[in-house]
Amino acid sequence: MPPPLPTLLPTLPPAAHAGDTLAAIDTPALLLDLDAFERNLDAMQAAASAAGVALRPHAKAHKTPAIALAQLQRGAVGICCQKVSEALPFLQAGVADIHISNQTVGLPKAMLLAQLSLHGRFSVCVDAVQQVADLAAATAALASRLAVFIEIDIGQGRCGVADAPAVLRLLDALAPHPQLRFGGLQAYQGGVQHVRGHAQRRDAAARAAERTAAMVAALAAAGVACPVVTGGGSGSVEFDLASGVYTELQPGSYVFMDADYGRNEAGAALRLDHSLFVASTVMSVGGGGRCILDAGLKSLAVDSGLPLVWQAGAPSSTLTYAAANDEHGIVRAADGAGLPALGSQLLLVPGHCDPTLNLHDALVAVRGGVVQDLWPVAARGLSR
Amino acid sequence: MPPPLPTLLPTLPPAAHAGDTLAAIDTPALLLDLDAFERNLDAMQAAASAAGVALRPHAKAHKTPAIALAQLQRGAVGICCQKVSEALPFLQAGVADIHISNQTVGLPKAMLLAQLSLHGRFSVCVDAVQQVADLAAATAALASRLAVFIEIDIGQGRCGVADAPAVLRLLDALAPHPQLRFGGLQAYQGGVQHVRGHAQRRDAAARAAERTAAMVAALAAAGVACPVVTGGGSGSVEFDLASGVYTELQPGSYVFMDADYGRNEAGAALRLDHSLFVASTVMSVGGGGRCILDAGLKSLAVDSGLPLVWQAGAPSSTLTYAAANDEHGIVRAADGAGLPALGSQLLLVPGHCDPTLNLHDALVAVRGGVVQDLWPVAARGLSR
Repeated sequence: MPPPLPTLLPTLPPAAHAGDTLAAIDTPALLLDLDAFERNLDAMQAAASAAGVALRPHAKAHKTPAIALAQLQRGAVGICCQKVSEALPFLQAGVADIHISNQTVGLPKAMLLAQLSLHGRFSVCVDAVQQVADLAAATAALASRLAVFIEIDIGQGRCGVADAPAVLRLLDALAPHPQLRFGGLQAYQGGVQHVRGHAQRRDAAARAAERTAAMVAALAAAGVACPVVTGGGSGSVEFDLASGVYTELQPGSYVFMDADYGRNEAGAALRLDHSLFVASTVMSVGGGGRCILDAGLKSLAVDSGLPLVWQAGAPSSTLTYAAANDEHGIVRAADGAGLPALGSQLLLVPGHCDPTLNLHDALVAVRGGVVQDLWPVAARGLSR
Repeated sequence: MPPPLPTLLPTLPPAAHAGDTLAAIDTPALLLDLDAFERNLDAMQAAASAAGVALRPHAKAHKTPAIALAQLQRGAVGICCQKVSEALPFLQAGVADIHISNQTVGLPKAMLLAQLSLHGRFSVCVDAVQQVADLAAATAALASRLAVFIEIDIGQGRCGVADAPAVLRLLDALAPHPQLRFGGLQAYQGGVQHVRGHAQRRDAAARAAERTAAMVAALAAAGVACPVVTGGGSGSVEFDLASGVYTELQPGSYVFMDADYGRNEAGAALRLDHSLFVASTVMSVGGGGRCILDAGLKSLAVDSGLPLVWQAGAPSSTLTYAAANDEHGIVRAADGAGLPALGSQLLLVPGHCDPTLNLHDALVAVRGGVVQDLWPVAARGLSR
């Protein structure tokens, strides 16, 4: 006799449980190799500490409170978030020092930030007087306090003011509002991060640092001291640490080392390993030297290139992820090379970590091929 | 006296409330223009009904139960999902006829599907005997029933078997399992969907339909009738409807008409409008003819191109979305053209709707510039 019809709909089981082997993970799933992850965290903190520079890792890369806590435990002074809403799950997890490394516009966002700053130490960037006015109104209404950083453009051509007079105008706008403290300068050059050659990247980072140093000097000549000079990213951090200009650095992707950062020529000073993978399964094996994976555009960000294929713990020398559809990945084998069998699991190194994390609700933490834990990517989707 | 420190952390307010104007929406936010949306739904259902072909819209495009219910209410026979897990929130919302238009591999996914099929009418694709074995074991264990479609490759070179003998082998594999009913063929050619020229796309769709028809004929010659022949997409649907080959069509993107589909040369038979937008705010206005939006890679999928900028309800003739960073969009103005002021709201038409929906937890439904409702994108992230 058949079992009676259930009255409750099934729920989706988690992708993995502690103690599972890799093969037991339901795919697609985002994996963190804890050994490589911890080496990356240790290496970056050691480099920052040796240089006497504060490390404030960027949480937009991981969006995962468990990772922020691991960074703080090693000596990070706090974290960066890119949006106000993104800070919420970190604050909830006990991260109490958060820099919003970006402008916010409009009173609703300023009010949320002012609310958050009643519970922790918050700072935010400005590059226009109107932003200062919104922050002043919100913090006055809630009797809260904020540190305000003035972002300067050191060559990227994105946000930030261009010259010292513009900084001084923003300082004038801050002056009437004692609840808004001048935190210092933010100076970030995203264009430097992916310059491939090591010497070329060093030179590009030097040009950016020179612009930052020139601004600090111009402000000093005007009688303005910058308590903190914050900036930098995973591609430039070794040069930024040695520059003597920055008092605080904001690398994010170093935690994971995505495929795009992996294409940078690394220096001897700071070696980082791939720790982030998307586990996928061969769901179809057609003719013509191809197989089809269950991980496509909805599991992997492809803006910085397609993922790399790993097999048996190392990059595959024969398999190439050739195209991504919404839920399919098309993998091709080199001439004469074998294809993995239907049901085989392949690991993929994502092209770009930040937007890949933003696709997943959980990170499967693995050590030595065994699942240790599932970490919620609690800030996923928080872009407001 | 300052107010006492609150003990509860704030929560993130919704992006909008019913009755809000566009300007009041907290950005970035995903917007649905209900008038255009309903015209698209009506036009597609009318075209399918006129051709006597069943419409089974693909829910991977919208991941939104409220949209599936609107499609069913207009006459759709059911929906497609691309993954088993994706079906769960639709089943929970009362959508009881769901075709998984894809292969599943492994017993855990087969067990979940067998569980779901106790609550509704489910079908799934196969292209390998091992998939049939997993489905047979799972449905036998749970005393559930499934319709099984055999996917054929009609030129895309992705999933699907290539010839009639392979179909017959899969039918032999199904035969011992009475709980697995042969549902028919699935035949989809994704490569046809974005052929730009109307005549070229018609010819490409005709070649794909000929391959489908040839397979149906070969099976008939072997004594096998196909109860349903399902396939097609938003780019080929007008040709597929007229082909006489398909009994059921699976378009998804027609609901939204993203920028990539908008680049197709449309035919007279089926006019569709852009209904999907990402509302974004100018958060910085630098020099050099640029402004910076708060919507980047985490709010918009860019795999099929950057978004189009709209102003005042129409495509902007002067503003171009030139580059996407994680949380920044860089917009450039044509020579001499003005830039929107700090705090202005711009609407963006995403390049590719499916992975854009997969970034957002809610869709702000708007009519005549006034927010009507927030619809949960309940299947977001469900790629297993």
